[in-house]
Amino acid sequence: MEKRRIYMDYSATTPVKKEVLDAMMPYLTDYFGNASSFHSFGREAKNALDKAREQVANLINAKPSEIYFTAGGSESDNWSLEGVAYSHKEKGNHIITSKIEHHAILHTCEYLEKHHGFEVTYLDVDSEGKISLEQLENAIKDSTILISIMFANNEIGTIQPIKEIGEIAKKHNILFHTDAVQAAGNIPIDIKELNIDLMSMSSHKIYGAKGVGALYIKTGTKLHNFVHGGAQEKRRRAGTENIPAIVGYGKAAEIAKDNMENHVTTLTRLRNKLIKGILDNIPYTTVNGSLEDRLPGNANFGFEFIEGEGILLMLDMLGIAASSGSACTSGSLDPSHVLMALGLPHEKAHGSLRLTVGDFTTEEDIDYIIENLPGVIERLRSMSPLYDKIKNQG
Amino acid sequence: MEKRRIYMDYSATTPVKKEVLDAMMPYLTDYFGNASSFHSFGREAKNALDKAREQVANLINAKPSEIYFTAGGSESDNWSLEGVAYSHKEKGNHIITSKIEHHAILHTCEYLEKHHGFEVTYLDVDSEGKISLEQLENAIKDSTILISIMFANNEIGTIQPIKEIGEIAKKHNILFHTDAVQAAGNIPIDIKELNIDLMSMSSHKIYGAKGVGALYIKTGTKLHNFVHGGAQEKRRRAGTENIPAIVGYGKAAEIAKDNMENHVTTLTRLRNKLIKGILDNIPYTTVNGSLEDRLPGNANFGFEFIEGEGILLMLDMLGIAASSGSACTSGSLDPSHVLMALGLPHEKAHGSLRLTVGDFTTEEDIDYIIENLPGVIERLRSMSPLYDKIKNQG
Repeated sequence: MEKRRIYMDYSATTPVKKEVLDAMMPYLTDYFGNASSFHSFGREAKNALDKAREQVANLINAKPSEIYFTAGGSESDNWSLEGVAYSHKEKGNHIITSKIEHHAILHTCEYLEKHHGFEVTYLDVDSEGKISLEQLENAIKDSTILISIMFANNEIGTIQPIKEIGEIAKKHNILFHTDAVQAAGNIPIDIKELNIDLMSMSSHKIYGAKGVGALYIKTGTKLHNFVHGGAQEKRRRAGTENIPAIVGYGKAAEIAKDNMENHVTTLTRLRNKLIKGILDNIPYTTVNGSLEDRLPGNANFGFEFIEGEGILLMLDMLGIAASSGSACTSGSLDPSHVLMALGLPHEKAHGSLRLTVGDFTTEEDIDYIIENLPGVIERLRSMSPLYDKIKNQG
Repeated sequence: MEKRRIYMDYSATTPVKKEVLDAMMPYLTDYFGNASSFHSFGREAKNALDKAREQVANLINAKPSEIYFTAGGSESDNWSLEGVAYSHKEKGNHIITSKIEHHAILHTCEYLEKHHGFEVTYLDVDSEGKISLEQLENAIKDSTILISIMFANNEIGTIQPIKEIGEIAKKHNILFHTDAVQAAGNIPIDIKELNIDLMSMSSHKIYGAKGVGALYIKTGTKLHNFVHGGAQEKRRRAGTENIPAIVGYGKAAEIAKDNMENHVTTLTRLRNKLIKGILDNIPYTTVNGSLEDRLPGNANFGFEFIEGEGILLMLDMLGIAASSGSACTSGSLDPSHVLMALGLPHEKAHGSLRLTVGDFTTEEDIDYIIENLPGVIERLRSMSPLYDKIKNQG
């Protein structure tokens, strides 16, 4: 019997959809030209690039001229922060972000502090993971040049009040960047309704290939280039355009836009079923993050008395692919900085499990997890002296 | 009748070899996991990453631990320059490079000069495109922190005296970076025989996919990170690993190594046949660059009395894909900075044509070009009043 495998880690990466791969294949074979070349092979590539840029722009209702392809979300985040910081240092050296950003933001901020003379304010979040608009406004100084607050968190799925943050940024004439790597393509975003100047996006979180992302740059926004060199991307991002992956990203964006309502509804239903099934069947369990303003596919549980790593190991043996937090920080023994920022005690932050559902998740997958996870948790808890004590008291 | 198409622009980009695509496909379909994930999907990806790192390391006789995957040659170049510059600014602010570097080097140098207080010396080259070792040594100051000289030029194919440059760098205790985007995989490189600290490489120049490259970082070399964020690439380069492209790059590197002797011999023969055929049949024509120390696939001609753009247009109509210089600078009307640095007058630099052959180039392709190019040149020259005058004098 072949072992059952259930993928519950869509926030780490998604499989490439068949239609996306079909769109990419001609550019991995016959149409291999360099989009900057002055001949028919080059023109084929250039036309594909133009089309993909329109598809990605359409996803967020931007102009194609506002979409710049990058190698992924991390590059888009680095570009935004360093690009704004260095180009605005005459105006000021202060950046505002939050404590639960992705490390592509946090580590870039730390780098700018340590080596380039910038000052960063890291906003607290409440127990659901939301920043306080009042605290944001109070943090603004004359020297503030950039606010960078993520659209939706990768670990707990909490969606920030982006519109309100944008209004505050606009009122104070400060640039606003948002890391929408988890959001763009997974929830509806109309960039024209939001005061966003810069937005990071990624392909492999929405069923496109790895190795490509985009940075939305609102018309007129000034920032230094990040990758210097050739004249690609209207002289703003050098490097031979990664046409196959870009074409795939365009197709993935198109599918995401066309299928948005169904995607959100279906994932929310599966996710809610999962949450209910787990809470009903496993005691001493909480859901981390907001229940209302949350990415459709995200469930993040806190199980008392045990460690996340043990859960992952046992789930992996059952063929279930899950995560304790972000894939980008695996290998670290520190508890998640996101969960710590929620105010969770150290031991609770250690017992977390992220299960993220996606377009290929089935009802049967959810049933299988609801059936098997309680046993896993009970077995791990049975090794905990503290749990034993509490159980015997009960 | 289907139009004949001949690709003579292998230096701009190469088609993906079938074996390379075959190696990539499982990672674009079934094995889609994030290499940093803690489950079976992640381990499959991680194993593939490890194997590819070994393959790329083998190509240049490096240790796998010295290979860092990036999004491509431009990122590797930017990383080397900015990474060394910012991390060594206490020691000095002076960088030495040459006038014929790729724009990923030149524009990064200009950026460091303009915005970050660095000083850059741009070495001259001789009429073949080689730097002078004496001039290099004379340019070194106490404040020199980095020498960056390309391995082989992308436009004219000239190979620099890398070993000697490395010895000078070592003698003066200065880091040495080389942009080997055109060289690594196209000519033999044994990194252990050369005093190179940092070397930029690219996949899509050696029949791998676009969107991936590598930076060789010699053990113990200190430089700041370029893309900050997650813990990927031993915490030195953040961003979800682009596994399909990395796997392809590994395979392409393996093929390049195994096939090196045949690759060099065959391309050199085809290239020499092309050069002879053109020089024998078209008067007032020169070859730009060195005839001895030259990339096997590169031919770069100077045709007097005409402009490169006209040649490209007419060749394109004949189905021949060629270039006037680098794909990364197309769209610009300025003459090539490389040809200008050779000392060519403005009008000669304008009449250049780069034809680069590769592993799929046939004898018939070369014959077709030798047959057709003279007519193209003659037709364009017939519109030149100057050529008319000279011809009538002759």
